[in-house]
Order: sequence, then structure tokens, then C-alpha cells
Amino acid sequence: MKSDLPTLSAPATPLFDTLLVYGVGLLGGSVALAAKSRHVARHIVGMGRHAERLSAAQRAGVIDSYCIDPAQIPPQTDLFVAAAPVDRIAGVIREVIPALNPNCLVTDVGSTKVELAAHLADLTGEQGTIPFVGSHPIAGGDKAGFEHASGDLFIGRTCVICPDHVVESAVLKTEQFWQALGMQTVRMSAQEHDEALATTSHLPHVAAAALAGILPDEWQIVTGAGFRDTSRVAMGPSELWVSILESNWEPVVQSLERLQNQLGAFIQALKTNDSQKLLELLQAGEIRRKQLDIDES
Amino acid sequence: MKSDLPTLSAPATPLFDTLLVYGVGLLGGSVALAAKSRHVARHIVGMGRHAERLSAAQRAGVIDSYCIDPAQIPPQTDLFVAAAPVDRIAGVIREVIPALNPNCLVTDVGSTKVELAAHLADLTGEQGTIPFVGSHPIAGGDKAGFEHASGDLFIGRTCVICPDHVVESAVLKTEQFWQALGMQTVRMSAQEHDEALATTSHLPHVAAAALAGILPDEWQIVTGAGFRDTSRVAMGPSELWVSILESNWEPVVQSLERLQNQLGAFIQALKTNDSQKLLELLQAGEIRRKQLDIDES
Repeated sequence: MKSDLPTLSAPATPLFDTLLVYGVGLLGGSVALAAKSRHVARHIVGMGRHAERLSAAQRAGVIDSYCIDPAQIPPQTDLFVAAAPVDRIAGVIREVIPALNPNCLVTDVGSTKVELAAHLADLTGEQGTIPFVGSHPIAGGDKAGFEHASGDLFIGRTCVICPDHVVESAVLKTEQFWQALGMQTVRMSAQEHDEALATTSHLPHVAAAALAGILPDEWQIVTGAGFRDTSRVAMGPSELWVSILESNWEPVVQSLERLQNQLGAFIQALKTNDSQKLLELLQAGEIRRKQLDIDES
Repeated sequence: MKSDLPTLSAPATPLFDTLLVYGVGLLGGSVALAAKSRHVARHIVGMGRHAERLSAAQRAGVIDSYCIDPAQIPPQTDLFVAAAPVDRIAGVIREVIPALNPNCLVTDVGSTKVELAAHLADLTGEQGTIPFVGSHPIAGGDKAGFEHASGDLFIGRTCVICPDHVVESAVLKTEQFWQALGMQTVRMSAQEHDEALATTSHLPHVAAAALAGILPDEWQIVTGAGFRDTSRVAMGPSELWVSILESNWEPVVQSLERLQNQLGAFIQALKTNDSQKLLELLQAGEIRRKQLDIDES
């Protein structure tokens, strides 16, 4: 044994003293667990509307303590993560902001960014004073609730950071936070984020739901792995997805129309017996999809 | 220990003496391995166009022996499985039939059935004499070649049997064969099979390829598990899928148009801000997709 190996113990000083997570569900719970296990914050406080759920999360070891009333927020809170459903994030931030130290970094985990930024423009935009940095950790799962949370949920995944109208130091601190949870970060404007995610996240959800939605009862028995994989994300919570899709409806409509057009090209190739065109369309998908696996490995 | 427990050794008499498999790839190789390990045939012969591939499959223990020339087919062959790509199955059957014992049961693993039945109508239809029973074992994988074959590929999966214009004894024997390989069987006419599979297999492939095909380079980094799952089957071999889609083009076009219409309903709900309709569309997919997992468990 060598005694001069670097030790893997906790860093002497955590990045944050007290992390406040509003919404201790799958994502919020995973943020709490990852921050705890990686010593990113000294103390982790959960917040939400349901005391019994927060109490259960505390007993399960997901959070250290919890509060319902903003008046109970610890004054030393220096990071606030809003992990509510996307249509409630602005309201949650407005509710909590008055109780926070003005230097407390504020971020979120929302799936869309333009509408949120508009709703918070007076607080956080060019005229605002709150150090709000929009974050979208691209990680999740089909099952809701902190019971399914995992401190490993973010490892190796990408987090988009939207630095619109925020001081660089706050952006850097936000990047450090997600990187400390195991993520790679990428900066995009809120608008670019929403256009990209309309295609990479919202479109596959709608495609999966549309595919599953037109399957007749009597043909369920002849579905194989292909149908199941292609429609798997449709099992996600529909109420949540209504909020996501509506908060980004224009880019989502554009991506849906692009998919319709691409399906139309397949229809045209089949109707005209154009094997070469059909092969090109299939290969465009095959090559691009294989590229995703290469990039991930 | 009790001595009167039933023994789990091989049945005294295998269902078939000699199984001939044309096309020793992923599916044909898996048929050979499953038939061997489950003692469904005494001897397993591979056939194909490439002696070096067949020799490699023999050395790998996938088949017992192989032949290239129909003249070399063992006279005791009593089951022939055509496991060639769907556009070559009719040709393969025509090539091999003259060398087979007239009582040899003939089946296939093709993804479409109507076109094949039409191509073989003179041999196998109402006027024909060959005991041909169309089979479609709904099992597979992204990777081609016997190197990826598995004797467990079929366990718990469904095999569609098309009994059009065949004597009942041949249909029963074909069902016994796939059941002995671990599958559940379901009977459908060739036409019903092709309509069902257009929706349950061919449509998800095209949807996945269309989705992957419209993803711009620069957004690859913000794809998550949702995009990857929904587009996974697009990694299947495009040349093979040209044959499948073209051999079933009319039902495939109909299923593509149904998907376009369903996507259009999502677009309409988003454009008119109709949250209730959007929720209904999402829930239709969520409920149906969850049903598939319940049925499988």
C-alpha cells in the first residue's frame, strides 16, 4: 500500500452551505441525494406543499429537514433549486424569493425555458436583481416520486444552462453545481434550448403517445420489442406533459410538422415504389441513431 | 428426494428428424440453436449461398452440417425453415422444394405474408400440394449474423401462424414446432397479419427512422433516454427494411397516414390551446402503452 495516494474523502469545503429544493419528487429527490452523497452542500432542506410527503422524504434520508412556510427557510440558504412541474416553477420562485438572502443562487430543473424567463423577467431579466440561471438536467424516468429518486440519476448526462441576462459568476457557479452532481454542462440561450428540446424530447414523447394511441386492442398480442421501445416514453405522466408541451407549443408544433413531412416522404417513396429514396430515408435515420450510441460510449 | 418426479431429460422422440434452415443469420441461427438445445430435431442442417459463413456457423456449433446445393439436402429432412430476407423467401422455397420429400413441412420466418403467399400460390395455395405454413416469430434484434443468435431468442414471444389454404395437420405441427422453441402461437390470415404488423412493427420502424432522420447534428448533445428509446429500432439494417416495407406497402401507407392524422390532432390541440384534448391524446397513449407492460408481466 502506498500512503501518498490522493484521498477520495469529501472536499474540505462544500460548494454550498444550505441547498433548498422545492419539490422533492423524482428529480428534486435525486438532486438532494446526489448533493448529499457528493458533499456538494452541507445541509439539504426540502420544501413543498405536502408536509406528510416531505416528512416521509426526510425519514427516507432524501433530505435533512423540510419546511412549508417561506418564513422557515434557513437564512444561510445559498442555493435554491426549483424542482416543481414546469407550469409551477415561476410561482414557486416568486413565493420563495422574498425569504431568500439576495445572494442566494436560484436555478430550476424545468423542461422549457422561454416562457419561464418571460414570467420572471421583472425579477431576473435585464432589469432584475435575482441571480437566476435556468437549468435543464436531461435526466429522468417514467416513475414519479422521491421513492424512485437516485443519487446516480445525473451521472454522465447533459445539463443545459441558460445564461441569458445573468452575471457570469452565477452561471459558473451553476455549472459547477451540476458538474459536481456528475453531469456535463452545455450553454444555450433559452430560445435555442426550447427549439432543440422540442425536437429531442417533446417530439419523441408525442410520437410515442401517438403511436401507442392508435394501436387497436386486438393487435396488442403482436407487438414486439420494436413497438415497446418506440412507445416507451408514452408511459410518462400525461398531466405533466400537458404543461411541458403547452409551455413550448410553437417549437413543438414546428417539430411535429417536420416529422409529419418526413413521414410523408416515406409515404411518397412507398406509393411510387422508389426503393432508392426509401433506402436513403431509412439510412438517414440508421446513421444518425447509430451516431448517438457512438457519442455516448 | 422423491423418485417419482417427472424427469426433465430430452423427449424420447424429437418432433422432427432433420431440420433444414436456409439462412443462418440472427433468426435462422437462433432457430437452429433453440431446436438443438430443446431436442426439437435430431439433426440440423444449414443452407445458404456462402460456404465460408456456413462453415463458420458449423464450427461455432450453431448447425450440425451444411449444404449449398439442393442435391445435397438429406432425404430424411422433414422440416424446412426459410430464414432468408423477406424478398428472397419465395425464391429460396422454389429452389429447395424439388429436392424435398413431398411430406416435408415448409415454413418461414418472414415479416410479411400476403405477397409471399401470392408468389407461391401455384405451389402452396388452393391448387398446390406443398404443405407450406407461413410463420412470423416476433423476435429479433438490431445485430445481424449467427454470431448474435441465441437459443433463448424466442422464449415468451409470440409467433403468428398463417393457416391460409393448408391442411390442419400441417398447421398443428407448425404450432408445435414454435411452441417447442418457447413461443406462444396465434393464428391470423395472411392479410390480417400484414395489416396488424404494419401497425405493430413496420410503423414503429418508420417512425423511429423519421425521428432520427430529422435530428440536426448540433442537437445530438441534448438527446436523452426518451429520444434514444423512441428511435432505437432505426438502427436495424436499412436494406432489409426496404424489402419488408415494400412487400407490405399498402398497409404500411395506411398506418403511416393514421400516425400523421394522430400527430395532426396533437398539432390542432396545441394551436387551439385545448388542454383537455391534449390530455386525452396523451392519456390514450399512456394507458395503452402501460397495458402492454401489464400483459407481458
